[in-house]
Amino acid sequence: MRDISIGDLDDLAMGAAVLGTGGGGDPYIGKLLARSAMLGKPPVSLMDPADLADDDIVLPTAMMGAPTVMVEKIPSGEEIITAIESLSAFLGKKVTATMPMEAGGVNSMIPFAVAAKLGIPVVDADGMGRAFPELQMVTPTIWGIQASPMAIADDKGNSAILQTVDNRWTETFARSLTVDMGASALISLYPMTGKQVKNATIHRTVSLIERIGRAIRESHERHTDPVGAVCDVMGGFRIWEGKVGDVARRTVGGFARGTASIVGSADYRGRTLEVDFQNEFLVARDGDDVLVTTPDLIAMLDAETGEPITTESLRYGFRVVVIGAPSDQRWRTERGLELVGPSYFGYDLPFVPIESRFG
Amino acid sequence: MRDISIGDLDDLAMGAAVLGTGGGGDPYIGKLLARSAMLGKPPVSLMDPADLADDDIVLPTAMMGAPTVMVEKIPSGEEIITAIESLSAFLGKKVTATMPMEAGGVNSMIPFAVAAKLGIPVVDADGMGRAFPELQMVTPTIWGIQASPMAIADDKGNSAILQTVDNRWTETFARSLTVDMGASALISLYPMTGKQVKNATIHRTVSLIERIGRAIRESHERHTDPVGAVCDVMGGFRIWEGKVGDVARRTVGGFARGTASIVGSADYRGRTLEVDFQNEFLVARDGDDVLVTTPDLIAMLDAETGEPITTESLRYGFRVVVIGAPSDQRWRTERGLELVGPSYFGYDLPFVPIESRFG
Repeated sequence: MRDISIGDLDDLAMGAAVLGTGGGGDPYIGKLLARSAMLGKPPVSLMDPADLADDDIVLPTAMMGAPTVMVEKIPSGEEIITAIESLSAFLGKKVTATMPMEAGGVNSMIPFAVAAKLGIPVVDADGMGRAFPELQMVTPTIWGIQASPMAIADDKGNSAILQTVDNRWTETFARSLTVDMGASALISLYPMTGKQVKNATIHRTVSLIERIGRAIRESHERHTDPVGAVCDVMGGFRIWEGKVGDVARRTVGGFARGTASIVGSADYRGRTLEVDFQNEFLVARDGDDVLVTTPDLIAMLDAETGEPITTESLRYGFRVVVIGAPSDQRWRTERGLELVGPSYFGYDLPFVPIESRFG
Repeated sequence: MRDISIGDLDDLAMGAAVLGTGGGGDPYIGKLLARSAMLGKPPVSLMDPADLADDDIVLPTAMMGAPTVMVEKIPSGEEIITAIESLSAFLGKKVTATMPMEAGGVNSMIPFAVAAKLGIPVVDADGMGRAFPELQMVTPTIWGIQASPMAIADDKGNSAILQTVDNRWTETFARSLTVDMGASALISLYPMTGKQVKNATIHRTVSLIERIGRAIRESHERHTDPVGAVCDVMGGFRIWEGKVGDVARRTVGGFARGTASIVGSADYRGRTLEVDFQNEFLVARDGDDVLVTTPDLIAMLDAETGEPITTESLRYGFRVVVIGAPSDQRWRTERGLELVGPSYFGYDLPFVPIESRFG
């Protein structure tokens, strides 16, 4: 158990946006959210999953929707706790702690806002070790843990509790309600016991995003290479460098989908990288040459500052470095690839671990 | 309090489909549903609203969705009670009775299936005195009674509880979930105390549909005019006679919408009546001459048998008599017309009470 204060939020939000792989929300919004909830409150306790009692009740919290909308529709303090409180009331159980289910500029920070308001700790873990676009795409699904009962709340005071037969149905219903709610909503889902969190989640993701954020900040202070520092922390690889060309995007069914072209510079001159996204970057291709695919991580960093760029802020002319990094081993199993591999997203591509191409 | 047995279901389903004004579901399906739930059980008690205690808890039950889909997707016994039981559990209150919220071939019968399974009475009342396409279109909305908390359940075992800031939001969310659930779902909504049912609903609608159904059956037995008998019970008017020509229909956002042309015969020869519907018949026009508009009732009866024809079973060549009847006075108030008048459905037409045209 250690304390997280407002001064720690910069590193956390920055690092989270790198693991957000283009999605997971804008880190600036995420920082604002957590900061306004934490102001005037004691620091939030970050709890190692190993310290949970088996019968503790952990209710993860997150935002759902198209990140392009999140930028314009910052949730108020109240709606953030409506979701977790209505889930707790529905379960008839007192919540011990909250936690993120995905890493991302907003979704790593929501639990800190909730924790500050309710005076509960945040568990140092998540369900993805990165961001993914659909809510069944978490390691607890591999363990057969249900996303529902799940609570969803909007900024108008509406809320719902979903109870579904599997996690795909939770995603379907929650996505429809999110669209009705104005394309973004606050959610609390995957209610878990302490034992389930210990067995079925990815541990110490919050500490990892903090180290990534710190590496970027310190490289600025020391005038060293931020991209190299990020790759070192993540075990990742520099896969491309260039200037953003076309970005084709559309918001479909509550998702931000599209493709970004990165016109190569330096070693990559004369070639163009195409990076497809659905909230998160999914596949990076140089012509027929597939460099990285989901579930491995693809992130775009500003070529100067090493700061992560989300899909919604990606614009023509940005100079970027594209990096790739290995996903958690659980995503590389047969069951993991069924949930988040290239074929799930409609690509007829095999998954090839990034380290076998770049290592 | 009086008993309703399986032998009473024919009259009830038939009469309900007349008040269903083209919607509210197929009476044959409704009868099957209620019959299979009532088989081998004691009769269901029909309770006069005046006999409710003020603090009784009444949970209405219904089906939601496009009636065209209901015909092909008959709900099982279990899903019918999931909705009411999850609402009762959410409220933490024991249900005293159920009731219909609309009159219709299916929606008047669902409460009998629920009542038989749970051993509770059905209140002799409803929220419309007819059928309407959207769930906020009930007299309790005029009294400021909330549709939520509302439960919705499907045939796969999925369910949800909605809590919304107004009844239009309940409609929006429930409609989206109904579409996801395969375009039909079972619902329980407008939880009310006995006092609220006494004040804010339309009383003795079940008795009225039984009288309408009985009038049709007895006219067959006595070889008398069934259409005249129905008009007598409803205080209605014969407004058209003819043969069904084109029926343009489409299922949009969970609704069956369209227009039916009735090519006039006898007194109406040489003219064509156009009847628009959204689940229910909304407006009947002879060229520029508007004969009947919502909220007054429009029903199509088979010209031979006087049996009601739902929009989903309407086919080219059917010989029909179109009747109109006055709606409950509460629908004719300013607040009532805001909810269900012609302008709500996009028509630039004043509401003119049917008796001022035909009386």
